[in-house]
Amino acid sequence: MTETIQIHKPQPLDDHAVADLFTSARTVSYFSGEPVSDEQLTAIWDLAKWTPTAANTQPLRVLFVNTPEGKERLLRHINDSNKAKVESAGATAVLAIDPEYYEFIPTTFPHAAGLRDTFAANPDVAEASAKISAGLQGGGFIYAVRAVGLAAGPMTGFDAAGVDAEFFGESGWKSFLVVNIGQPGENAHLGRLPRVPEEKATRFV
Amino acid sequence: MTETIQIHKPQPLDDHAVADLFTSARTVSYFSGEPVSDEQLTAIWDLAKWTPTAANTQPLRVLFVNTPEGKERLLRHINDSNKAKVESAGATAVLAIDPEYYEFIPTTFPHAAGLRDTFAANPDVAEASAKISAGLQGGGFIYAVRAVGLAAGPMTGFDAAGVDAEFFGESGWKSFLVVNIGQPGENAHLGRLPRVPEEKATRFV
Repeated sequence: MTETIQIHKPQPLDDHAVADLFTSARTVSYFSGEPVSDEQLTAIWDLAKWTPTAANTQPLRVLFVNTPEGKERLLRHINDSNKAKVESAGATAVLAIDPEYYEFIPTTFPHAAGLRDTFAANPDVAEASAKISAGLQGGGFIYAVRAVGLAAGPMTGFDAAGVDAEFFGESGWKSFLVVNIGQPGENAHLGRLPRVPEEKATRFV
Repeated sequence: MTETIQIHKPQPLDDHAVADLFTSARTVSYFSGEPVSDEQLTAIWDLAKWTPTAANTQPLRVLFVNTPEGKERLLRHINDSNKAKVESAGATAVLAIDPEYYEFIPTTFPHAAGLRDTFAANPDVAEASAKISAGLQGGGFIYAVRAVGLAAGPMTGFDAAGVDAEFFGESGWKSFLVVNIGQPGENAHLGRLPRVPEEKATRFV
């Protein structure tokens, strides 16, 4: 039996979607405190999981912190200047890399399953690849938060080793980003900060 | 004079937009060959540039390859198994990190301009931060390609050192991802590959 593959023909987004994802979307620092449900968090992952990765390796793992106890444990490892952001968020996600992500390759990339052994034998190569792919997935995660109608507040100001010891002692996951999630509150963000000038950021050849 | 800041209230995307960005979107390997204009590439950047980064550092740089000569130079450094993908693409983007990205901090993050000196004095810290932020920007770039109605084909199968020597001798940019851009061709992609099971990829606390 031959699988029939539907080739998706991409269409430009309408102006509202472009505004909600890119041009009007903002990193929110202070949220309304309105709760975010576990179902909403699952819906975010159900979109973010489609972000492309090298050899479909999907090294990103996500810890959703959505209980008062969880938030209290997380707050111990957040920089002081960022604590109020986490406190005001409806929920918070910790984005991490699973150092043994390559164990899934035989199921997620079956036509090149031997890549599992290559990565297992070369931890530096495995780590470098994971950082690129998990970064792409992190970007996808932020856009997925916005796609379900919530605001994202990504932050790197936290003690990653502390978070890893707190939550990932058994799994060995390595955190690299915290993303607050919820509805924007008062004074949610400052004005737009400048972008690197286009002629410095891009070149054509 | 006080700046009035409009707080953007996020809205969920409609089903079409969700499909075009996430659930139906696919990494395209083989394109139609239809040209992509420099204006379309600029439009992609005009969306991708809003992706959040740590301290608004924006370390990502993009080389758009959109001439026959540029494509020929790029192809020398693409893995054999990926050459046909680049050849069929309307245009190709090389995503890179500017190792001296922190020089823009005084203008892009003026309220903490001293971070420029911290990064300049600690190249390892600067590099680690750049990799996280450029990864997020790379994810944003892929979604921006889709947002303007084109398909993206991100690839890591190329000789990064070769690409850097070919194009970035003066700037010192370090490439980490190649993204083919265009309209999907015949046999654009295989069927969907499996995702890491949700209960392995996410946890709640």
